[in-house]
Amino acid sequence: MTGGPAPPVLALTVAYDGTRFAGWQEQPGPPTVQGTLRDALARLHGVDREAIAVDGAGRTDAGVHALGQVASYRPPTPREPATVLRALAGLLPGAIRVLDAEPRGPSFHARRSATGKLYRYRIVQRDVLLPFEAPWAWHVVRPLDAARMERAARALVGRHDFAAFAASGRPTRTTVRTVTRLAVRRAPGGLLLVDVEADGFLYKMVRNIAGLLVDVGRSRRAVEDVPAVLASRDRARGSATAPARGLCLVRVRYGCPAASVS
Amino acid sequence: MTGGPAPPVLALTVAYDGTRFAGWQEQPGPPTVQGTLRDALARLHGVDREAIAVDGAGRTDAGVHALGQVASYRPPTPREPATVLRALAGLLPGAIRVLDAEPRGPSFHARRSATGKLYRYRIVQRDVLLPFEAPWAWHVVRPLDAARMERAARALVGRHDFAAFAASGRPTRTTVRTVTRLAVRRAPGGLLLVDVEADGFLYKMVRNIAGLLVDVGRSRRAVEDVPAVLASRDRARGSATAPARGLCLVRVRYGCPAASVS
Repeated sequence: MTGGPAPPVLALTVAYDGTRFAGWQEQPGPPTVQGTLRDALARLHGVDREAIAVDGAGRTDAGVHALGQVASYRPPTPREPATVLRALAGLLPGAIRVLDAEPRGPSFHARRSATGKLYRYRIVQRDVLLPFEAPWAWHVVRPLDAARMERAARALVGRHDFAAFAASGRPTRTTVRTVTRLAVRRAPGGLLLVDVEADGFLYKMVRNIAGLLVDVGRSRRAVEDVPAVLASRDRARGSATAPARGLCLVRVRYGCPAASVS
Repeated sequence: MTGGPAPPVLALTVAYDGTRFAGWQEQPGPPTVQGTLRDALARLHGVDREAIAVDGAGRTDAGVHALGQVASYRPPTPREPATVLRALAGLLPGAIRVLDAEPRGPSFHARRSATGKLYRYRIVQRDVLLPFEAPWAWHVVRPLDAARMERAARALVGRHDFAAFAASGRPTRTTVRTVTRLAVRRAPGGLLLVDVEADGFLYKMVRNIAGLLVDVGRSRRAVEDVPAVLASRDRARGSATAPARGLCLVRVRYGCPAASVS
């Protein structure tokens, strides 16, 4: 069961149903993903939870999902990655699934080592939102013009000050981020997907971008409003924040940063 | 809001998340789909619930889902089908969605008028069952041989006495049914789908068929066991019943019966 020296750091790829948790970050009150993972790892290694520190690549909000969140921790006792993977399947609730466990070097940190993250925002455009998709999408019945949204989105690609898309509540050193990709596309079943890839994200940044793009898509706002909102650095100039349930952290990139676009 | 004479019967196409209900059929205790629909229709028409009788094409069990269940009732007060459709969206919980409302002739009855029903059983073959698919699938990690299952399934197509696939608990006039289609196929994302279409189904018939086919797929049983189990008319000769959560009532057919196969 144990065998082999403890890897300095283990990186876990984690999927979760955000509707079941009060967000990633541990805090007093209802269960969080970080807290639940910490409890499971403490049981797995047979130590107190205080002996475990779990870092996450993205601090997803309450209701936000993940298919490829990355969490890292220093195993306090030696365990093969495959053993950790297997054991966590039994120790975690079904709403959190660990897809992979990989050994990393001693300096690896899920958030600080990340060079990029991909978030996907899912919008369902059909008349009726089916029960199985309800927790995973924003239901927008009014038709959206995807080409218009795509055109507007171009203004956000590149290195910019995204202060106009940051909710207050989380202090940050700088509000400058580099968006390497922002794609709006239709998918089968009346889906409209907004993919945003960047070197980092401000608090509620993707949901504020999605909210503005939806207003552009339904012609409530002009395509030119998007560069104007960006330049203003003023959150009050933006649109309402899109609901948490449509958002999912799809992938975290390590190593070479994505080629900068534009 | 009201306008027009009451159609003699309204047929509703209904989708639901079976995990939230104690099955279709109304009974004392936790909420059922039929009971919840009846309450909503009573409020919509402003009558006592005793004035509403809702019939369903398939009496799905607790945990079994629907994408295309059909429910019929006689509107006690005149309402346009479009009005009923819109109003039910607000009166029902998100776990039940009405996709369509169509007027039918006075003799229409969701179950008795049905000439066929299609059920789909979903099996996920990946190592990890993702949180969003967990309520909608049976997780079978061990690889299944779909071609073997498909070969075995052929013995069940046609008009047969399916007593060996009927759970006790629901008296029925006859255990003879005609299966017009039974297809086993792989779908993207590690899915294995078992589609069963028949003129009618016995209690737990699809789940008992799925359980036996999975045993054939993992070579626990021989392909030839399937015709032998069928011929025995003995439920004890079959395999364990597959879990409810993998099953979904996809479509109900009215009018011409499907061409009989074999």
